[in-house]
Amino acid sequence: MIELNLTNLEDLARGTAFLATGGGGDPYIGKLMLKHQLEQGKKVKIISPDEIDDDTFACNVLTMGAPTVFGEKAPNGLTSYEAMKKVEEIIGKKFNAIMPIEAGGVNATLPLVVGALSGLPVIDADGMGRAFPELQMVTYNVGDVSINPLVVINDFYETGIFNSRNSSSGEWLSRAVCVRMGGICQVACYPMNAKQIRETSVHNTIKLSFEIGSLIQKARDDKNDPVEEIIKYMGKSNPPRVGKLLFTGKIDDLLRETVNGWTRGKMYLKSLNDKDTLLVEFQNEFSYAKLNDNKVLAMVPDLICALDSETGEPITTDSLRYGQRIKIVAVSVPPIMRSEKALKLFGPRAFGLPFDYTPLEDIN
Amino acid sequence: MIELNLTNLEDLARGTAFLATGGGGDPYIGKLMLKHQLEQGKKVKIISPDEIDDDTFACNVLTMGAPTVFGEKAPNGLTSYEAMKKVEEIIGKKFNAIMPIEAGGVNATLPLVVGALSGLPVIDADGMGRAFPELQMVTYNVGDVSINPLVVINDFYETGIFNSRNSSSGEWLSRAVCVRMGGICQVACYPMNAKQIRETSVHNTIKLSFEIGSLIQKARDDKNDPVEEIIKYMGKSNPPRVGKLLFTGKIDDLLRETVNGWTRGKMYLKSLNDKDTLLVEFQNEFSYAKLNDNKVLAMVPDLICALDSETGEPITTDSLRYGQRIKIVAVSVPPIMRSEKALKLFGPRAFGLPFDYTPLEDIN
Repeated sequence: MIELNLTNLEDLARGTAFLATGGGGDPYIGKLMLKHQLEQGKKVKIISPDEIDDDTFACNVLTMGAPTVFGEKAPNGLTSYEAMKKVEEIIGKKFNAIMPIEAGGVNATLPLVVGALSGLPVIDADGMGRAFPELQMVTYNVGDVSINPLVVINDFYETGIFNSRNSSSGEWLSRAVCVRMGGICQVACYPMNAKQIRETSVHNTIKLSFEIGSLIQKARDDKNDPVEEIIKYMGKSNPPRVGKLLFTGKIDDLLRETVNGWTRGKMYLKSLNDKDTLLVEFQNEFSYAKLNDNKVLAMVPDLICALDSETGEPITTDSLRYGQRIKIVAVSVPPIMRSEKALKLFGPRAFGLPFDYTPLEDIN
Repeated sequence: MIELNLTNLEDLARGTAFLATGGGGDPYIGKLMLKHQLEQGKKVKIISPDEIDDDTFACNVLTMGAPTVFGEKAPNGLTSYEAMKKVEEIIGKKFNAIMPIEAGGVNATLPLVVGALSGLPVIDADGMGRAFPELQMVTYNVGDVSINPLVVINDFYETGIFNSRNSSSGEWLSRAVCVRMGGICQVACYPMNAKQIRETSVHNTIKLSFEIGSLIQKARDDKNDPVEEIIKYMGKSNPPRVGKLLFTGKIDDLLRETVNGWTRGKMYLKSLNDKDTLLVEFQNEFSYAKLNDNKVLAMVPDLICALDSETGEPITTDSLRYGQRIKIVAVSVPPIMRSEKALKLFGPRAFGLPFDYTPLEDIN
C-alpha cells in the first residue's frame, strides 16, 4: 500500500505527466485537486491489485474531453463522485474501490481525489498503462469487461446514462454529449470485479508514476540527465522495457485545434543543427513520431513523451509552444498491451494511421 | 372516443401532414406503421383530454431527427415502446396512457402505434398543436412540466437517459446523441399527470387531423378547391381560426441540407405570372414566409403549409422538388400557443429570426 502525502505528490504529478504521453491535461490541475484534499486532512490509500480481496468491486472514474479545455473548466472530483454513485444506483450494488482508467494526466490523479472524497481505496492499476484518447482503448476490453452503465455528468449535475452495445459505441455516443457539455464532462464506467481487475488491467502504474517522477527530480538534483536515467530505469524494470531518446530539437511549427472533443494536432521539431525534422502527431496524446518525413521512429501503443530538454519536465500537448527545446523519448509498453486484440484497440490502425504496429525495439 | 380503422387512416395521415407544416417526415411512413398494426387486429383508442381520469399518467413518445432520414430508417414503434418502459422503470410508476408531443407528421401517428402495441389509450392532445423541430418547443413548458427523464433509443436498443436542468438543455444534449445514432432515434419524455395534460396541452388535435384530412378528400371528390374548404373550416372552428392563402406558385429554387439533426433549408417560389417571389424558410418545419424579399406574410407559431396546387395534398419539406406547383396556406394557432411564455418557446426569436411575432390576422 502506498500512502499519498504532500511530499510525494510532486513526484506523482510529474510521473503521471510522463505517462500521459502528451495528453491528460496540465498536471498542475491534478496536483492542485489532490493538494486541496490532503490539506483538508483527507487520506488516500493506494492498493496494489495483488492485495485486493475477492469481493472487490471497483468503478473507473475519469474526465472526458479535450485537455485544452481542462485548464478552463477544471474538474474538482465532486461530480465524478456523483457519477460513481449514479452507477451504483443503476446496478444496485455499492463499490468498495476506485480505479483510474488511464495512468497518465489528470485522469491518473482524479480517482485519488474521488478516493479522498469517498474514503474508498484506489487500486494501483489502470486500463491503458499510459493515456489514450478514447474510452474503448483499454486493456479491459481484451477481457471483454462491459463499459456499461456509462454515466456522464457536468457541473450543473446534469447526467446522461448510456447503455451501449460495445465500448466503441459508448465512446461515440458519450463523446457527442461531452462536446455539448462544453468539451469536458466527468465519467464513471467499466464497473469491475476482482477477477477482471487482476486479469485485464495494467498493474502498478501509480507506483510507476511515483518512481518516474522521483527519478526525474533526483537526476536534476544530482546534475544527471533525466532522460538517461529514465532509459536506465526502464531497462531494469520487470519485465524490462526499452527506452529510447528519439530526437532533440526545438518546436519549429505547431498545428493544434480543439475538435470533436479532442485536442488534435501536429508538432514539427527541427534538430539543433537544423539538419533533421521530426513530426509528432497527436490526438490528445502523441500517436507516432516520424523522422524526415519518411521513417516512423515510434508509434502507439508505445509511449512517446516530450520532455523539456533541460529539466526533463514532461510537456503536455496543450502546453506545447513554438520555439520550446524538447527531447522526445519513447518507451515500450508491457506485453498485455501488445497482444493482437490489444493492438486492435489501440495500435496504429485504431488511430486511423496507415501502417501496422512495429515494436519500438524492432525499429533501428 | 375515436376509434382508428383502415378507412379513416387515410384522413388521419393527410391531416397530420397538414399540421406538420412541412415537417414530421413523409406521412406515408406513419400510415404504413399504423396500417400494419390495424391489419394485425390491433385496436387503437383515442380519448379526449375532457374524458381522462384524474389518475391518468401519460408518456410522450416521439421520433427525433431529420425528416430526410425518416424515409431511410423508418421507425416501427417497438423501440419507442421500449423507451417508454425505460421511463417507467426510472420513475418507478406505470403509465396508463400515451401522448403525442406534436400533432403533425410521423410523430402524430407513432404514439398510436405505441398505443396499439401496449394496449394503452392515446390522449387526443399534444404539446405543439402542429409540429416543431425542438423538444422544448411545447406548451407543456408554459406549465413547467419537466422533460425528465428523457430516454433516447436506437435500433440496436442502445439507450441514453438524460436528466437535464431544463428542456432546452435536454434538447441540446439528446440531439447530439440523435445525430450520432444516425440522425434518428426514438424518444420518451415529459411524463404527465391528468392536471398537466388538461392545463398545458393543445386539445383535440388528433380529431383535427381526421377532420382536415377528410375535408381535403371531400373537396377533391366534390371538385371543390381544398384550400378554400380548409379556410372555411378554420373560420368555423371554436374558437375560430384565421386561414389565408398566402401564395400560389412553383418552386423556383430549393436549398436543403440535413445538418445537426434537422432538415434545414429555403424554398423560393415564383408566382405563375413570374411577377412575385415567396421565400419560405424551414428547420424541419416552415418557420416563416416572406414576399418579394420585404414582407413577412406569416411566421411561427402560426401554421405555414405547402399543398399541391391541384389535389390539396400537404407536401413535407423532405418531399419538395424543383418545379412543383404549390399553394402556401397559413392558419392561426389557438390562444394557448400565443401567450408571452409560449412565444418565448416557439415564436420567431426562438428560431433565431430577427423579428417579433405578429399574429397572422394582423398582417395585411
